[in-house]
Parts: sequence; structure tokens; C-alpha cells
Amino acid sequence: MARVVVDVMLKPEILDPQGKAVHGALPRLGFGGIVDVRQGKRFELEIEGEATEERLAEVHKIAETLLSNPVIEDYAIHVEGATASGKHTA
Amino acid sequence: MARVVVDVMLKPEILDPQGKAVHGALPRLGFGGIVDVRQGKRFELEIEGEATEERLAEVHKIAETLLSNPVIEDYAIHVEGATASGKHTA
Repeated sequence: MARVVVDVMLKPEILDPQGKAVHGALPRLGFGGIVDVRQGKRFELEIEGEATEERLAEVHKIAETLLSNPVIEDYAIHVEGATASGKHTA
Repeated sequence: MARVVVDVMLKPEILDPQGKAVHGALPRLGFGGIVDVRQGKRFELEIEGEATEERLAEVHKIAETLLSNPVIEDYAIHVEGATASGKHTA
């Protein structure tokens, strides 16, 4: 069994009100030195068997159709414990 | 400027209805071979200057107090582009 991680973040040009809210709260809590905060989603998928090319191609399709909205979000896929990764910017 | 990533996931023993919903939708969309899905949050913090020990200690405090609920969530911190990382399980 392998764990594949899909990170979904808003595209840089899309406003991120959640991240802004966190960023705005930091000085109030006494934390300085943070220039920007962006908030996104992280999905951990446990897949059957090894993380083969085919399996990862399927995860790419899942990320594209179910886990992200390609109009406003980018996703990145990586196998946990491995170095190979794929980034997708539509 | 450095980018520090904070991944916040529900503890393994905490039910994850969002992940369950995604997992349940997969077969309906024709995707098989996924055993489990967990959904969490990913925060990207742009920090001033280098990611020094002190800065990372501050990010740990931010993750603990603002970005996660230590009762039900674990967080992991890593500097993007670097190999060093810190995992925190309360």
C-alpha cells in the first residue's frame, strides 16, 4: 500500500480570504515576520499496491475532476516517502 | 524570503467525514483501487528572511495555536525546497 498526497492550492492570482484572515490574525496574537499566508487543501490517498505510473495517472484524473477546481486551483501530487512528484498548473 | 508549509491533518483516530465523502464518490466516478482518503489543510507561510531555527520555532507556535486544534489535529512543518521537517503529534 502506498500513500499519495494531493495538495490543492488556489492559483496565485485568485484571492484567498481564508489565508488573509490567518495573516490578519498573526499580529494580533503577537507573531511578526510573516509576509503572506495561503490556505489550501491536502488529501492523503491510500492506494492499493504500489504507486505505479498507471495508478498515478488515475490519481491525476481524480485530482483534476474531484479534488480540485481547475478554473481557480492548482494541484500537486507526490508519493509520500518518494522524491518523484508532479505539479499541475492549468 | 522562504516558504514554510504547515500541513494540518485530523489525528488518525478522529473520524474524517470529508475524506469519507471523497472516498465514497470515487467508485461512482469510476475510480477504483483507493483504500482510504483523508482530507486536511495546507498552509503556505511566506516568512521574512531565512528560515532560521527561531523563525521555525515561531511557526511551530503559530501552527499550534492558530492553524491547528491540538485536541483533534496533528501538524507537520517543512521548509519548501529544504529536506528538514518537523512532525508534531500531541
